[in-house]
Amino acid sequence: MSAELRAVALGGGHGLQATLSALRRITSDVTAVVTVADDGGSSGRLRRELGLLPPGDLRKALAALSDSDPDGQLWSTVFEHRFGGSGALAGHAVGNLVLAGLLEVLDDPVRVLDQACRLLGVRGRVLPMSTEPLDMSADVVGLDSDPDAVRTIRGQVAIASTPGRVKQVSLQAAGGARPAACPEAVEAVLSADLVLLGPGSWFTSVLPHLLVPELHEALVRTTARRFVVLNLVPQPGETAGFSPEQHLDVLSQHAPQLRVDAVLADANSVPTPDRLRAAAAELGARTLLDEIAAPAVPGRHDPQALATSLRAALERRTDRWR
Amino acid sequence: MSAELRAVALGGGHGLQATLSALRRITSDVTAVVTVADDGGSSGRLRRELGLLPPGDLRKALAALSDSDPDGQLWSTVFEHRFGGSGALAGHAVGNLVLAGLLEVLDDPVRVLDQACRLLGVRGRVLPMSTEPLDMSADVVGLDSDPDAVRTIRGQVAIASTPGRVKQVSLQAAGGARPAACPEAVEAVLSADLVLLGPGSWFTSVLPHLLVPELHEALVRTTARRFVVLNLVPQPGETAGFSPEQHLDVLSQHAPQLRVDAVLADANSVPTPDRLRAAAAELGARTLLDEIAAPAVPGRHDPQALATSLRAALERRTDRWR
Repeated sequence: MSAELRAVALGGGHGLQATLSALRRITSDVTAVVTVADDGGSSGRLRRELGLLPPGDLRKALAALSDSDPDGQLWSTVFEHRFGGSGALAGHAVGNLVLAGLLEVLDDPVRVLDQACRLLGVRGRVLPMSTEPLDMSADVVGLDSDPDAVRTIRGQVAIASTPGRVKQVSLQAAGGARPAACPEAVEAVLSADLVLLGPGSWFTSVLPHLLVPELHEALVRTTARRFVVLNLVPQPGETAGFSPEQHLDVLSQHAPQLRVDAVLADANSVPTPDRLRAAAAELGARTLLDEIAAPAVPGRHDPQALATSLRAALERRTDRWR
Repeated sequence: MSAELRAVALGGGHGLQATLSALRRITSDVTAVVTVADDGGSSGRLRRELGLLPPGDLRKALAALSDSDPDGQLWSTVFEHRFGGSGALAGHAVGNLVLAGLLEVLDDPVRVLDQACRLLGVRGRVLPMSTEPLDMSADVVGLDSDPDAVRTIRGQVAIASTPGRVKQVSLQAAGGARPAACPEAVEAVLSADLVLLGPGSWFTSVLPHLLVPELHEALVRTTARRFVVLNLVPQPGETAGFSPEQHLDVLSQHAPQLRVDAVLADANSVPTPDRLRAAAAELGARTLLDEIAAPAVPGRHDPQALATSLRAALERRTDRWR
């Protein structure tokens, strides 16, 4: 494949960092489309204090695409640096504060991120899925003595850590309004050659993109190939006990019209390959099982191995489909 | 004079911003040597919370020397932007937080400032007078019923706002140690063609440089021409009621060996020019009276007028000496 493959990865957090690190090994035209529903940690504090887009997932995507020149590396390190101690700044990532300052000065998240990309020497682009902060809510069962009782849990942190079972998630803009997509993110998906969903916190980092109507529609309509990369382990809390195929079922429930070309999973993380293949086939996808777990960091993908697997899927090398 | 004039301006705060803005009209080789004894505002909070060099005066010097290209201007605006609201970040300048992050990552203030200079497109250099945060103390009279009773006031903010009369200031590093100069600042003073002291808060922004022994010695020894730029008005608090000539007396008390080539003052801010000329002559200096006040901002120098006055003093145009 040529270096001009236009790839778009949607997600947030460490999962998105993994796909971005893998994609930059394949092409220099990588766009990250990042969730903006976080309400925890440094991001949540900034969001509550200043009413801004939560910057943490955006910052992680920038760092993942940062260039290897000394200036880009230094600013990437500074962006990821967190203040210590026990004062008012403790736990804030410096990059979150820089992004907050840029957001207040420029008042245009796309310009802010383009500026940050230049600072960190990013090859590619980082975009928010929406230009306004969004709020998640989830229908969760298993929180009451009645196992069928459904409760609405609000906020990304609360959903990600619920001891109940998440059935469905939804997204709201301020005042309960329908979330608006970032137009540049929609355009990136529509003009892409490859679109990646996952890995990552399934309900709180991967599915949110499907809950923004214009982005959902773009994902359904795009002529790009659509790959889903599955997690290595269920997420404690939101997907505790979920099998790989249940992740696909949930995806399908939230986007019944979405067709998928390939499902990539770690061969050692799939207890029942036949069931996964069947679930993937229902989405129109083949299943590619490779060893893509990082040897040293449990639960993380190895970017190089993931890149190799993505290449195989792009080239439709049939010897690797198992 | 050539564009290669090597100019060094010592100070802090708005006074230093004025000289830097004037000097950049004369030469592109400007070095700011900045006080690091601030303990107030955003700087003081960062210093107390993180144990870092107070960044505020350094940030102001960077902004004053920032280039006019769009990127440099944007980052300069972002550096100067202060978070509003009433939360943990309220009042912090974004640039102070960026400098704090760089200081924690690089642990070398000179590298930090060189990096910030690149970001803001600074032509010239910004250096701290010392690479460690310093503490000021002052002997102050007039705080007790006995008018001769001397009290020691500690901290830049307390000194700057004392209702008493400051007699003498001193500087200490951590644990009361003798303050060490930043070697690059000493070298800049020694190799300069022109050194500027003032304007600015006299005891808390101008004199501190003379209280760092190696910097004091460099200012005495340098072959550069030494100009003193006087304030337009006495500072409420630390120099309330001080005449222009008293500012020179205080300078002389803190640095008896310091020779000065020219004293520049605003013609409309000197009630008794003969007394000022006499005080300047004791330092070896001629006195240059020009109209250098900004028309719109009371108490601030006009950078263009100050640049014209500095050029006249450098060219020793005798028609302007009054």
